[in-house]
Amino acid sequence: MLPISSSSPFERWLLQRVLSAIGQAPIRLALKGREAVSPNGTRPVATIVIRDLPTLFKLILNPEIGLGDAYSEGSVEVEGDLVAALEAVYRSWPSFRPDAWLTRRKAQWLERLKANTPRRSRENVHHHYDLNADFYRRWLDRELLYTCAYFPTPSATLEEAQIAKMDYVCRKVQLQPGETVVEAGCGWGALALHMARKYGARVKAVNLSHQQIVFARQRAREEGLADKVEFIEDDYRNISGRFDVFMSVGMLEHVGLHNYEEMGRVIHRSVGDSGRGLLHFIGRNWPAPLSAWIRKRIFPGAYAPTLRQALEVFEPWDFSVCDVENLRLHYARTLEHWLDRFERCTPEISEKFDPKFVRAWRLYLAGSLVAFRVGTLQLFQVTFAGFQCQRIPWTREHLYAAQQPQVQGPKWTHAMS
Amino acid sequence: MLPISSSSPFERWLLQRVLSAIGQAPIRLALKGREAVSPNGTRPVATIVIRDLPTLFKLILNPEIGLGDAYSEGSVEVEGDLVAALEAVYRSWPSFRPDAWLTRRKAQWLERLKANTPRRSRENVHHHYDLNADFYRRWLDRELLYTCAYFPTPSATLEEAQIAKMDYVCRKVQLQPGETVVEAGCGWGALALHMARKYGARVKAVNLSHQQIVFARQRAREEGLADKVEFIEDDYRNISGRFDVFMSVGMLEHVGLHNYEEMGRVIHRSVGDSGRGLLHFIGRNWPAPLSAWIRKRIFPGAYAPTLRQALEVFEPWDFSVCDVENLRLHYARTLEHWLDRFERCTPEISEKFDPKFVRAWRLYLAGSLVAFRVGTLQLFQVTFAGFQCQRIPWTREHLYAAQQPQVQGPKWTHAMS
Repeated sequence: MLPISSSSPFERWLLQRVLSAIGQAPIRLALKGREAVSPNGTRPVATIVIRDLPTLFKLILNPEIGLGDAYSEGSVEVEGDLVAALEAVYRSWPSFRPDAWLTRRKAQWLERLKANTPRRSRENVHHHYDLNADFYRRWLDRELLYTCAYFPTPSATLEEAQIAKMDYVCRKVQLQPGETVVEAGCGWGALALHMARKYGARVKAVNLSHQQIVFARQRAREEGLADKVEFIEDDYRNISGRFDVFMSVGMLEHVGLHNYEEMGRVIHRSVGDSGRGLLHFIGRNWPAPLSAWIRKRIFPGAYAPTLRQALEVFEPWDFSVCDVENLRLHYARTLEHWLDRFERCTPEISEKFDPKFVRAWRLYLAGSLVAFRVGTLQLFQVTFAGFQCQRIPWTREHLYAAQQPQVQGPKWTHAMS
Repeated sequence: MLPISSSSPFERWLLQRVLSAIGQAPIRLALKGREAVSPNGTRPVATIVIRDLPTLFKLILNPEIGLGDAYSEGSVEVEGDLVAALEAVYRSWPSFRPDAWLTRRKAQWLERLKANTPRRSRENVHHHYDLNADFYRRWLDRELLYTCAYFPTPSATLEEAQIAKMDYVCRKVQLQPGETVVEAGCGWGALALHMARKYGARVKAVNLSHQQIVFARQRAREEGLADKVEFIEDDYRNISGRFDVFMSVGMLEHVGLHNYEEMGRVIHRSVGDSGRGLLHFIGRNWPAPLSAWIRKRIFPGAYAPTLRQALEVFEPWDFSVCDVENLRLHYARTLEHWLDRFERCTPEISEKFDPKFVRAWRLYLAGSLVAFRVGTLQLFQVTFAGFQCQRIPWTREHLYAAQQPQVQGPKWTHAMS
């Protein structure tokens, strides 16, 4: 370790500017080998060490992308707990709070500029989801679910919580044996297979990721479910056929605001006025783009809508919103598990990926964890039904009955009777 | 009864026009004393008897207001089940389904034209809620709750279901002893008193109806709760003070679209970033005004928003939507009870009110029942929390635990920890 020397007045002034810009978050900020600065009267939770003046300038000129890239490259290090440091920043940084007009407009402009055409959607999906399944298998649960889990109790394991999530969404739509389901954005196929295996449903599952579809088809064959679950490599816009249930867990984030009308049309075409369904997606309290770094390096084309924006999918089609649940704390917990597993398998991952990749993913997982914990991001499950749907449960109590091996029929309400 | 004579070709043509306009609903339509017409191939559920040709013309020229007024005046009679007849019409009438652009625009124009200024709000509230409590007492539950009840099972009594509703909303906001609540639109005070009596809360309850406030204050004194519940005759826009919880059951319908921003401001002023609350309101799947007759005769200034529109209250203030539940079938059941009680006490009501009033109220209750049963109207309960709120339950399971005399503390999540 180099001996600590004192910073120049100019360096201290620059560091103080950065502290101001992030709302005097309780962290120490230092140029490598120099004395740190921290906001007066706070108890710093960690130290962010910046390698040199050029890196510091980059951070000042472009804070969001600059910080992400600098951390990935190792020119910014965090001494202490990365999650605690990020949490301190998220809770203090004014730009993570709504500044009304400008943030809203910016979110909308960005959305319009980068329309998710079918071609661009394919590229975006390839960027993230076509990474080898071996990589994800190291830190996801056994079933390879890459979406928010549902922890019946905070101490449930990740494996339990992912199974519980699959049962929870099936119960929310009251899936019955013999019913048909279309799933838009099916990942590695766990939910589609679960719906067929445990609920006796017939499932058509659509996904743009070639790698994931190949993997899912293989699983279906191995489990002898290939006749009940059809995995199709295609865009959700091309879904055809008629189904009882529309299910989508973790895809709306990749659809983009300007396609919600089209998304609604696809859903209505799929389930009509008598069907029902569920959308599970990352959202926000107020309209804003995702972090510029996330959009650039991790999820190109992604947008997390407010609940109000997401309802544009349903309103033109006379769908009833039956139930909305915000599970953001469950996503924070899910990410705690993912990050913990990721850290533990870093040596193996580092054999196949360069250090920059590993650091970028660590930052992405830690930053997402903090965003859900702090409330910068939300996780919504929206259950909906066509206006002629007869499957409206009398109450939600059946969701919380003791878990049964088979879903129990709730008291049906014949809305049309 | 007059002997039935055959209709003239012109009369039959007119009646067929009306049947067409209401989408060939399975009902018989007849001029008094004349032969009825009904759509081919249907099994009519009731007969609508129109007194004379002038009445028929009125119905054709102005169907919504015409029908309501003609029924109230007795120039239109329903032979058979009024609810079944209305249900047949609601299910068939095309104008009860979205015709997208025009209906949306119409709803917005109407809303802008009739802005609910504080003065107009006062007049509107007076029109409906300042009717003598004796009138409402005859057909509401013992606690005088004039909003959708919550029936844990469909066979619960109305009294049980209204108590259950009060407990349900208190549990949804996790009301704790010693907490402060502001209630906007408190009716005759039942919920405010319940929150104080059963949950140990201190409540400020605001209502524009003079009669209701006088009544509620008297109850508070009689129950010895006057030191815990303050009833104030005022507009919600004048609410002042700081509270843990904002509660409003059945008031948003009277606020009007153009005041949602103000409503959000009032809520944020009342509970800040760390508070929470619940809005319970009549809504719709797609934007449309309430029936013209309801707006003219029953609820001037009322508007039932879509969930998307209602969320305009929360979004500018960084409130998180925690939970949304659609209870429209519970409102249909509530209205079945109200209508049944109303019918049984018609003789007593008729001693104080003229027949036109009684018939108008019967139509209003029956029409509302059908609107909730069919899905023309929805009932939303939205639970929300400021972004710094620490009272976010881990799951919703605690809502369905066996009813306790005192609310049980759920597993708290310290979102800020």
